[in-house]
Amino acid sequence: MPRRVIVVGANAAGVEAASAARKKDRAAEITLVTMEKNAGYSRCGLPFVIEGIIPSFRDLIVYPPAYFQMLKLNLRTETKVTAINTKDKTIAIACKDDTTETLTYDSLVIATGADPFMPPIKGREKQGIFALRGLEDGERIDAAVKAGAKSAVIMGAGLIGLETGVALIERGLSVTIVEMLPQILPQMLDADMAKTMQEQLEAKGMKILTGKTVEEFLGDDRVTAIIAGGERIEADLFISAFGVRANTKLAADAGIPLGETRAIKTNARMETDVKDVYAVGDCAESANIITHKPMCAQLGTIAVRQGKVAGTNAGGDYSLFTGVLVSAVTRLFDVEAGATGLTEAAAARNRIEVITGAISSKTKADYYPSAKPIKVKLVVEKESQRLIGAQIIGGEEVTQRINALSFAIQKQMTVRELTKADTAYAPPLCETWEPMVLAAEMVLMKLR
Amino acid sequence: MPRRVIVVGANAAGVEAASAARKKDRAAEITLVTMEKNAGYSRCGLPFVIEGIIPSFRDLIVYPPAYFQMLKLNLRTETKVTAINTKDKTIAIACKDDTTETLTYDSLVIATGADPFMPPIKGREKQGIFALRGLEDGERIDAAVKAGAKSAVIMGAGLIGLETGVALIERGLSVTIVEMLPQILPQMLDADMAKTMQEQLEAKGMKILTGKTVEEFLGDDRVTAIIAGGERIEADLFISAFGVRANTKLAADAGIPLGETRAIKTNARMETDVKDVYAVGDCAESANIITHKPMCAQLGTIAVRQGKVAGTNAGGDYSLFTGVLVSAVTRLFDVEAGATGLTEAAAARNRIEVITGAISSKTKADYYPSAKPIKVKLVVEKESQRLIGAQIIGGEEVTQRINALSFAIQKQMTVRELTKADTAYAPPLCETWEPMVLAAEMVLMKLR
Repeated sequence: MPRRVIVVGANAAGVEAASAARKKDRAAEITLVTMEKNAGYSRCGLPFVIEGIIPSFRDLIVYPPAYFQMLKLNLRTETKVTAINTKDKTIAIACKDDTTETLTYDSLVIATGADPFMPPIKGREKQGIFALRGLEDGERIDAAVKAGAKSAVIMGAGLIGLETGVALIERGLSVTIVEMLPQILPQMLDADMAKTMQEQLEAKGMKILTGKTVEEFLGDDRVTAIIAGGERIEADLFISAFGVRANTKLAADAGIPLGETRAIKTNARMETDVKDVYAVGDCAESANIITHKPMCAQLGTIAVRQGKVAGTNAGGDYSLFTGVLVSAVTRLFDVEAGATGLTEAAAARNRIEVITGAISSKTKADYYPSAKPIKVKLVVEKESQRLIGAQIIGGEEVTQRINALSFAIQKQMTVRELTKADTAYAPPLCETWEPMVLAAEMVLMKLR
Repeated sequence: MPRRVIVVGANAAGVEAASAARKKDRAAEITLVTMEKNAGYSRCGLPFVIEGIIPSFRDLIVYPPAYFQMLKLNLRTETKVTAINTKDKTIAIACKDDTTETLTYDSLVIATGADPFMPPIKGREKQGIFALRGLEDGERIDAAVKAGAKSAVIMGAGLIGLETGVALIERGLSVTIVEMLPQILPQMLDADMAKTMQEQLEAKGMKILTGKTVEEFLGDDRVTAIIAGGERIEADLFISAFGVRANTKLAADAGIPLGETRAIKTNARMETDVKDVYAVGDCAESANIITHKPMCAQLGTIAVRQGKVAGTNAGGDYSLFTGVLVSAVTRLFDVEAGATGLTEAAAARNRIEVITGAISSKTKADYYPSAKPIKVKLVVEKESQRLIGAQIIGGEEVTQRINALSFAIQKQMTVRELTKADTAYAPPLCETWEPMVLAAEMVLMKLR
């Protein structure tokens, strides 16, 4: 009998898991089940459709139905998994035609993702608060802009909040960001780097209120204003970008243990505490490479990597997930910001002693026209002198510098090794002394 | 008595050495001697002044006289070192006013650079063959273009040859490149990657003749045509870009040993076989990180790194140079090409067995407008499965990918580790699966 693999969820992690399982077992019966109408689309692309750079939300469907047919993946959309029975190795599903079914699996991959989180704010049951998670969410925001919205309040200054803010400013709206913490991008940047970024955003007309908690949604049945930090802010459009929470109910109800982050606990094979049941993507925990602590990174890059590992294992082969550094990058207007490893603040929370160094330089030779500013901050563990984190804000080529430092961290490069590292140079492309190397020199001076 | 440091040569390597010595010893008497009129300028910027992107050759002077004054570096331009006496620790100089002097050193740094090489071609004594090495060379080529040159032949398809070719095409000239070897960029790229790059250049109107030896310069006292591979090619402007040769005469005459590459032999402190005499930059050898063989890389990035190490040692402190990977990058029209470590061909010459893998991908998410093509080739040592080389051709962000792979090679990353590495992603900036990682997958498939 062919191996039966079921994947719950059909976006980044789920599709990758199903594809990897197919690669390992050509004869397996592989089924993907998703509640959504669409499968295999890129959530990360949503702000850019709203911005108008990408013509249609349909364009974000990276894996069209033909992909699933080609790989003989049985895709069931608008289908809800109502229960998992890990003893019988079955799942119960409710189909779009209201019938129910029971499916049997040999291997199960849970890729149920995460849902936008709404804090218990007074008035949150009112109409007109938009999230940005699925294609339909994007379409709703786009429709509101087309209907004439002139102003927006975005609650949360994380990646999604800020990218959506940029998109709406580019569409002509006036945008106010409200963030509870004292800085923007708190998971990605330290306060000093966040300040640099915030100034750039404000210079482009984004209004940013940090250290302000949203206290109330005002309006009759439809929200027309919020109270944040005691201040009343009116707008035509309200977007909740407070963050997302792992969808773990299905797993928890089935007795599959959650971890200390409240996401589904996994081992390095991305297997849960229940044999043959895997969990991947935004609903699953993995170890941080530096702290070794479980974390739920909720990034697309992590989701596909975990999906691939789980799918390989579910398909009968063997693969280990090597952990998470949380490398991430964004472009906001014409400025890029990226980070990898631990921030100085995260290191302190983990009681890791660090030395940091930061420098400002340029992205091309100083004499080359159109050179853009770039700022690099490095976080170095004091005892080992190893790099454990990096943050970069600059006009170009931030992403691959983050990748370079991610590789350096993963291979335990010391800050001294970085000062000596062989780098490439050409006047139109970078400075003779690479900014990453100059930042390492700054750290080294403090270590002497 | 203060320490006396003399540096012969005052461009990338020499200025860096003098600056590093000053950093280590505030009281030292530091003298730089150069035959050139100008010191501290960027040779790498010359093609971009010819192209018209940078307004003036003067703009390339990265270290103006004020820099030398500020650091109390005694700069003597238009001064020729006629002899080194390593026994007495003196040098003899001929000054611009035709007087001669003898200077005493405690530490000597030889940074005499390299000169353009002209093969023994019939007619090479004729007028009108330009090289591109110094500011004056650039000015001469620029003057020839201003005087109405409509066509150019460039002999040599290395970095300088091609960058100058692009510059002249942008100035409206028709350009023919003549290369003796069967491919362009032979030190940087394997034949397959070079072919990709050559097609892009030809599409922009560059005429490229590979596998053709220049046999004769024709014309009365001034060159008006060449014979290459039996073919007669006429032009208004002839540029020799055959490569450069280390300037070692001064050192050799002083009994300072040369190495197997015919450049000055050094140890890891950049010290020659003679105590207290250092050699750095385009005239000096260093070990290749992978083959451990001495090489003379002749790149600006290597020059400054070696200069810093030698200057630190000459200033009484201690520093080691960690070797050369020859990371290099260029932009030709709107395409970037870069490489680090060994090519497949160089690995074969060194009898290193390799597996290679190459992929074509895009620089942004597939659905994101203006995504540009990118091609990554990896060279992996068979036994250890470690990365030992990489070549990339792409529309953007090539430089920092080369740096990322340079770090990976220096930290002995295996190709399997690269397939699992944590990378950053955002739709406007890269693909979910980073092209470097996809190329690693290709290698892994062949290793299985």
